[in-house]
Amino acid sequence: MGKIAKNEDFLFNQVYDYVLNRIECKEWNEHDKLPSIRQLALELNINRLTVLKAYQLLKKHNKIYVKDKVGYFVQSKETVPPEYSDHSIVSAYVQKSSLSEIHQSQVDYNFSQALIDPNLLPNHYLSDYVKKVFDLYPKILATYSNVQGDKELRDALAHYFIKRYKTVLDADNLLILSGSQQGIHLIAQTFIKPRDTVLFERPSYSAAIDIFRARGAKILTVDITPDGYDLDEVEQYMKRYKPRLFYLNPTFHNPTGYTVPAAQRKELVRLAEQYRCLLLEDDAYHDIYFEKKPPAPIYTFDTSGTVIYLRSFCKYISPGLRVAAMICQSSIMKSLISVKALTDNGSPLLNQKIFLHYFSSPRLQQHIDKLRIALQVRKEIMEEELNHTNWQWNSPDGGLNLWVQLPNDQSTEVLLTKSMAYSISFVPGPVCDPLKTLSSWMRLSYSYTNENQLREGLKKLIHAAK
Amino acid sequence: MGKIAKNEDFLFNQVYDYVLNRIECKEWNEHDKLPSIRQLALELNINRLTVLKAYQLLKKHNKIYVKDKVGYFVQSKETVPPEYSDHSIVSAYVQKSSLSEIHQSQVDYNFSQALIDPNLLPNHYLSDYVKKVFDLYPKILATYSNVQGDKELRDALAHYFIKRYKTVLDADNLLILSGSQQGIHLIAQTFIKPRDTVLFERPSYSAAIDIFRARGAKILTVDITPDGYDLDEVEQYMKRYKPRLFYLNPTFHNPTGYTVPAAQRKELVRLAEQYRCLLLEDDAYHDIYFEKKPPAPIYTFDTSGTVIYLRSFCKYISPGLRVAAMICQSSIMKSLISVKALTDNGSPLLNQKIFLHYFSSPRLQQHIDKLRIALQVRKEIMEEELNHTNWQWNSPDGGLNLWVQLPNDQSTEVLLTKSMAYSISFVPGPVCDPLKTLSSWMRLSYSYTNENQLREGLKKLIHAAK
Repeated sequence: MGKIAKNEDFLFNQVYDYVLNRIECKEWNEHDKLPSIRQLALELNINRLTVLKAYQLLKKHNKIYVKDKVGYFVQSKETVPPEYSDHSIVSAYVQKSSLSEIHQSQVDYNFSQALIDPNLLPNHYLSDYVKKVFDLYPKILATYSNVQGDKELRDALAHYFIKRYKTVLDADNLLILSGSQQGIHLIAQTFIKPRDTVLFERPSYSAAIDIFRARGAKILTVDITPDGYDLDEVEQYMKRYKPRLFYLNPTFHNPTGYTVPAAQRKELVRLAEQYRCLLLEDDAYHDIYFEKKPPAPIYTFDTSGTVIYLRSFCKYISPGLRVAAMICQSSIMKSLISVKALTDNGSPLLNQKIFLHYFSSPRLQQHIDKLRIALQVRKEIMEEELNHTNWQWNSPDGGLNLWVQLPNDQSTEVLLTKSMAYSISFVPGPVCDPLKTLSSWMRLSYSYTNENQLREGLKKLIHAAK
Repeated sequence: MGKIAKNEDFLFNQVYDYVLNRIECKEWNEHDKLPSIRQLALELNINRLTVLKAYQLLKKHNKIYVKDKVGYFVQSKETVPPEYSDHSIVSAYVQKSSLSEIHQSQVDYNFSQALIDPNLLPNHYLSDYVKKVFDLYPKILATYSNVQGDKELRDALAHYFIKRYKTVLDADNLLILSGSQQGIHLIAQTFIKPRDTVLFERPSYSAAIDIFRARGAKILTVDITPDGYDLDEVEQYMKRYKPRLFYLNPTFHNPTGYTVPAAQRKELVRLAEQYRCLLLEDDAYHDIYFEKKPPAPIYTFDTSGTVIYLRSFCKYISPGLRVAAMICQSSIMKSLISVKALTDNGSPLLNQKIFLHYFSSPRLQQHIDKLRIALQVRKEIMEEELNHTNWQWNSPDGGLNLWVQLPNDQSTEVLLTKSMAYSISFVPGPVCDPLKTLSSWMRLSYSYTNENQLREGLKKLIHAAK
């Protein structure tokens, strides 16, 4: 995509948001007539085609409807009872992507969940640690954690990061979260105002897109490719649109599996400092590499506190514990603690202590070593099967997913409908795309189903696509 | 307080909020001159004295400062770094009450925490249940809960409520939360817009006040007395100010210990329906009664879905588990689930299962029976000591606190400063008061310290007050 096409994408997105915001704020009410395409194009000083495309997508998303030869009108919302519908946040949430519905459907071949097969997790060992925790802290369930998180756990994590990356930090720079998604949500609540611009990779993690959209942010995208970002473009955007934050997932990126090269990481921090844009680095898959370790996290290049680092370990230890950690500088930390205090008054201490004891044991490293091999085997099985097709993807060096493109603009949303009849699920590209296009792409997760099911399911999926 | 005085309280509070909001939204910037008292009184069409009182309180709270013979000016905020301070939510959180600071200080005689002494909690039994949970669900730590909460737990709770109150509900009406504070926060995020009016009891739970204030709500108060509310006044307020929600804690109310009588409960639901005001009933102490059971919760009188019922059991079983439940009608539930999905994607399953197994066992009832007696004994010890003073309070029939008034307008904030020198903490009235007055009142919790410490600490407190 060239620069001009991109700029149009951005404008298109802005028009879409512009109309949607007015509807949600009740500036434009149900069954009100929208400005004509000509009018709005004039008013916003943009191409009519851009407005037309935005209106068409709004129509597809059931936000507006058309009366022939009369114009476009605001759709009524019957799902939300009238007494609660005058609040924009509810409407914003209700328009959420369909990802949770995809996950909720019970299927035999689950390629939609970027989760690790429970059979690959150290369940038995964890239950030992739970017993240990109760012996060590007999009154643990009678005790609240402090809001920032258990000091012993924060010390252990600080020690780990210092040893591993030689960065300067201590327990005060760490915040313990109930899952990394809570971290993204806290950041959005604390630092983003409605109409602030937030930069996203395209594609990106759909829950993060939902969180910032629900907060009322304008979303601006830069493509992520196997070579990272076009940093000139990032700089141009930072200069022109002054995004308050860049949400990024630079290591075994979800959904693509791409990794931003080391050389770009340092430069990105420099740009962020120069243009006062916070970087929110979500690093959930750092340890899931196949042959060689990924570059150090972006936060390790940060000297001025412009990076907020979000690290989830539990994805590959115990998703059920819901423990994640955030690293940030003290003025950001202070605000986040205040907001976390109101949100849930601190994460449960039991979960933090169980995690601490497993995290501090040599079993952790043994588990991760084994897990890497198991996941690499599964990835290779998936690729073997896909080699029988003319679908395209870049083989990732880590992570849980393949990002696959169908040929001839074939729609993955159409394919999903067909594949559900074979009891197969996956995530279609538009769900991961802030611009809701990328319609011939899909995310196939190889982490959740076992090896036999992987082969069987992929054969069926390929059959369904024909 | 008569009607007229109350109305003045409300106006005073409105002026306070009016000024604070303008400062927080950066409409008025640091060191800007505020309108003169005369000007603002004219503009808002109110008494000059009301403006003066609001300015004086703003000055006391360090929001504005005065230059002699020149006027009032906006105070600068040096605690928040400039790059993040232009967001109102941060400023709103930063002005949080000092409660967390009171709790953080390590004292020998802790009368400030409305928590139960860990020695009174069933720690040993709980650790048994944890082992049982791991035997029953060996992969529990590999599993996410669904967002609404574990179905088995919701079924058990629905069964409990049906049996106990003969109300119609099922698992779909229940949402599992990570602590009841998360419930209040979710409700505020989902149903309250900035500038919506929210009705509060006066005094009330300080964290709830903080949550709704941080959301930008205007807070309106009705007094709670040993006889409940003045329902005529409640109706007048609902009619006139159309509050969107009434946050109430009608059973062994925090901080007063008062209980709203059964006769008022039904009438309150009728009013709420008529004026389309949601009732958020926070019921954390229901089972902590001393002689006789309290009236049935307000939600049991609700037939149209206007009450949201928030029930925390963990306060007297295991605060560390962070499990609470909410009951509401389906359209409210739908919105709350969407917001909870973005907030933390569901509470940890382990914690829900541990709670479930203890909750379903006969040990729960045995524990609560014993706990009631232990707390009643502590309450009586506290009252015995206070009988040596001329301080005033109403003896509560349940809960964890005494709400005590010092004679002669003596300030409890001043007393707190003195008592900290004796290593004694409690909560001064203004912290529990949305209007930040009630300065001769204080909350003394008898639930956290043991019997000897209670006697000792109270003798010292009484000495300090002299």
